[in-house]
Amino acid sequence: MRQTSPHTDELRPWQTRLHEIIYESHTAAGKAFDIILLIFIIVSITVVMLDSVAALHIRYGRLFFVLEWFFTLSFTVEYVLRLICIRQPWKYIFSALGVIDLLAIIPSYLSFVYVGSQSLLVFRALRLLRVFRIFRLVHFLSEMQFLHVAILNSIRKISIFILFVLSTVVILGSIIYLVEGPANGFTSIPQSVYWAIVTITTVGYGDIAPATPLGKLIASFIMLLGYGILAVPTGIVTTEMALAAKARRQANEACPGCGREGHDHDARFCKYCGALL
Amino acid sequence: MRQTSPHTDELRPWQTRLHEIIYESHTAAGKAFDIILLIFIIVSITVVMLDSVAALHIRYGRLFFVLEWFFTLSFTVEYVLRLICIRQPWKYIFSALGVIDLLAIIPSYLSFVYVGSQSLLVFRALRLLRVFRIFRLVHFLSEMQFLHVAILNSIRKISIFILFVLSTVVILGSIIYLVEGPANGFTSIPQSVYWAIVTITTVGYGDIAPATPLGKLIASFIMLLGYGILAVPTGIVTTEMALAAKARRQANEACPGCGREGHDHDARFCKYCGALL
Amino acid sequence: MRQTSPHTDELRPWQTRLHEIIYESHTAAGKAFDIILLIFIIVSITVVMLDSVAALHIRYGRLFFVLEWFFTLSFTVEYVLRLICIRQPWKYIFSALGVIDLLAIIPSYLSFVYVGSQSLLVFRALRLLRVFRIFRLVHFLSEMQFLHVAILNSIRKISIFILFVLSTVVILGSIIYLVEGPANGFTSIPQSVYWAIVTITTVGYGDIAPATPLGKLIASFIMLLGYGILAVPTGIVTTEMALAAKARRQANEACPGCGREGHDHDARFCKYCGALL
Amino acid sequence: MRQTSPHTDELRPWQTRLHEIIYESHTAAGKAFDIILLIFIIVSITVVMLDSVAALHIRYGRLFFVLEWFFTLSFTVEYVLRLICIRQPWKYIFSALGVIDLLAIIPSYLSFVYVGSQSLLVFRALRLLRVFRIFRLVHFLSEMQFLHVAILNSIRKISIFILFVLSTVVILGSIIYLVEGPANGFTSIPQSVYWAIVTITTVGYGDIAPATPLGKLIASFIMLLGYGILAVPTGIVTTEMALAAKARRQANEACPGCGREGHDHDARFCKYCGALL
Repeated sequence: MRQTSPHTDELRPWQTRLHEIIYESHTAAGKAFDIILLIFIIVSITVVMLDSVAALHIRYGRLFFVLEWFFTLSFTVEYVLRLICIRQPWKYIFSALGVIDLLAIIPSYLSFVYVGSQSLLVFRALRLLRVFRIFRLVHFLSEMQFLHVAILNSIRKISIFILFVLSTVVILGSIIYLVEGPANGFTSIPQSVYWAIVTITTVGYGDIAPATPLGKLIASFIMLLGYGILAVPTGIVTTEMALAAKARRQANEACPGCGREGHDHDARFCKYCGALL
Repeated sequence: MRQTSPHTDELRPWQTRLHEIIYESHTAAGKAFDIILLIFIIVSITVVMLDSVAALHIRYGRLFFVLEWFFTLSFTVEYVLRLICIRQPWKYIFSALGVIDLLAIIPSYLSFVYVGSQSLLVFRALRLLRVFRIFRLVHFLSEMQFLHVAILNSIRKISIFILFVLSTVVILGSIIYLVEGPANGFTSIPQSVYWAIVTITTVGYGDIAPATPLGKLIASFIMLLGYGILAVPTGIVTTEMALAAKARRQANEACPGCGREGHDHDARFCKYCGALL
Repeated sequence: MRQTSPHTDELRPWQTRLHEIIYESHTAAGKAFDIILLIFIIVSITVVMLDSVAALHIRYGRLFFVLEWFFTLSFTVEYVLRLICIRQPWKYIFSALGVIDLLAIIPSYLSFVYVGSQSLLVFRALRLLRVFRIFRLVHFLSEMQFLHVAILNSIRKISIFILFVLSTVVILGSIIYLVEGPANGFTSIPQSVYWAIVTITTVGYGDIAPATPLGKLIASFIMLLGYGILAVPTGIVTTEMALAAKARRQANEACPGCGREGHDHDARFCKYCGALL
Repeated sequence: MRQTSPHTDELRPWQTRLHEIIYESHTAAGKAFDIILLIFIIVSITVVMLDSVAALHIRYGRLFFVLEWFFTLSFTVEYVLRLICIRQPWKYIFSALGVIDLLAIIPSYLSFVYVGSQSLLVFRALRLLRVFRIFRLVHFLSEMQFLHVAILNSIRKISIFILFVLSTVVILGSIIYLVEGPANGFTSIPQSVYWAIVTITTVGYGDIAPATPLGKLIASFIMLLGYGILAVPTGIVTTEMALAAKARRQANEACPGCGREGHDHDARFCKYCGALL
């Protein structure tokens, strides 16, 4: 609750007060600020999305334009306030959340230069990640941490898997290009590699499909391969999650002798009192 | 078997008898009632489905109409009987099963007001959940309980995952909208987000498909991403199921000394008699 | 090797000899018979498949016809031989393998009555299961047994899951039928339920696809649901396999005191000699 | 680092020096060689892929032609150098890496005889596997080893699964051929089997789709089957990975008494000093 106080020591009273409202949520004002922010984010994304629908743009384009600028200015004010009420503004600017907050306002200003760039305002969706902080969902954060650890531990294995899949689709795409040829829609190797990815991931748009018997045989092989290797990332993530779940459970096991927790995975005796665990 | 008796204490004899037939199935009459109910449910759903086929509606529409009303009146009578033979009718009305039972008859009456609403009669499919009770499939109920626990424990992790997927498709959908544009079928951001969902879940209708090289590159990335993150919900559910399976197995382990069950996961000594487990 | 001898006790010498060739494969003649049989099965299936290709039927139809009858007569002779060299022919006739062997020859004779029934000859593919016996792949049989146990244990949980999926597609199919209507290809509830199955299983042909915004919203929900619930059967099967793997491993653990195996999962002391496991 | 020295004992000094550069990467020259090689591989694959795009071929065909031959000659020189600086060239030629290295240059020379064969140059993608060696990513190699073991252990179970899937699609493809017939695009059994594979793997191109009610019913069954059996390979691989992870973890557990590692899975006492683990 008060862990941010050392950072606000040298701030003036109004800055401390602002910091509590904007960065924390244990006060009524802080909570209200967070909820209003959440609503602003969701409504602004909805406005950007609806504005892209031609029929709605014609009827409500003017309203959407006003709303977009209202939200952009609000978020700009919020961004400035965030900067002036902390001691080390650069730390916030280059943090993940700071970059996301900036991305949420830049496209509007960019639209003066590049028409259409306001579509990028949907990056505001990333700000929704604040939702966890807002509702102080400690349990959710713990689960998120859990998923994070399991996925981090899987990264190396999964990157090998992806390298393997990419090599496979390049080679299989080239073979199908030779077999089917431009006449059947496989106009180039990149196009055929795209088709191989569509097939191996079992998406299967059907915008390009093999027409020759040999092409269909190769396609069948790719499908069965994709169907089978889907097991690999799942196996990796599941194994890591099981390990993470085990580690978390064990860290919570208390010694029957002294009640202290945090024993190692393989510990049979309590490391504090020596009792049999 | 007799656990419902305290509730029927103050009911008159004919109510008690009716309660046994309708709510229980350990008597011959109760079993017969349940089986007839099950057949009625299946036949009534089939009638609703077949009636929607134009060719069959023209030939058998009259028969279907009579059957639908026969089933609706039957279920209405059953609903009323269910109400009058229990002490606390409101409890039934607001229970999950009670709401489902009501949903199974309302659409027919609504069809006087809104033509076509009788299609909603397929909600009767939910009544099929009674099948487990009918055949007293205790083992099935235990398995269902098992699945229920594992899925409940996964909810928090899966809701984080869904929030992540939704943010991703909003952002990727907007990017593809900028890249491909209305000329290639990506007429608006909501439409493009719909396409991103079709792609990331590997459904791939092909009603909209990227046409530009850059669009295909982004589509390939979305496919591989969808292919990979499919591992996450699977990993979550599998891990929870493994934990639930372990917990169930351990709860069934009896102490070799005193025979009592329900020892903790890490227990090495029986908590009742102290014997080594 | 000799476990079939009690059955051939009362058979005449030539029957015993025939039995060894046809039913067993530890003699050179028996092995040769099995390999020839395997080749016949594969070639006969290939002939049936190729004969269905119009272009090949016109050119080689006569050859295919002769080959088909050659294989049918061969399999008929084999079937009769199998019957006359065992003591209890009825037991074979009604066994799984016996029924498959009969299914492999009946369609040819049926083709006199129903033209086209010879396509059913592909049921001969089931005879390929003999491949495991032929090569005496004991390890494969052990693995097959392992898969069999894990899948059998999953059946109850998976049947609940399938009942849930079927109820879901009936209800969602009806809703989309009301939303999209016959104008967009959703001509009837069965048709819409078919579409819901195509979508929830992430197949996505694209022969029918929602056209209205609300229909696309519901479709997106079905896709994400299908994407998520795919985790359930996988979790079930994986958990059962892990349990089966554990059971098998433990059954193979020998006591350090007496060397005997087959101890229970939770055993800490050898049940034969009392030594600490 | 020096494990290759026994092989280079009888090589002349310049051969030893060359060997260090080409086959090893602990010297600056060796590392530079490997990185240049990696860049050459990636650029050459990109050139082959871009050259297949008609528009780019017209504009840059001449440049691509020159680049392709530059890379082919470079790789040919590299191949010859690899041969002359080792004692047993045949061992390299018939090793997996040697065959891949040869495959990376042959198609260019073959293009004199068969026009178009240069598309096969994408087999150079396989050379990317060298990337692990280049960056001395020992951890990656360990993970790769881990995946390799888990997948090897799954092969037998997965081959049974594939045999089952192949039998299933042959039989289901034939049934749908009889039901739908050539009029609805199911022109032959091989074509129908191809459709069954497209459906059971949930790819679903939609180039062929059932049109009759019975065909759609069978298709629904195939989809649900495919959706369900996808759990089997995933379950197999996950179980094997969990076992491999467990084995690796246990091999790393040190005895608390003597500190030595590598104890068996079920060991409770250290096999070196007898201390309780």
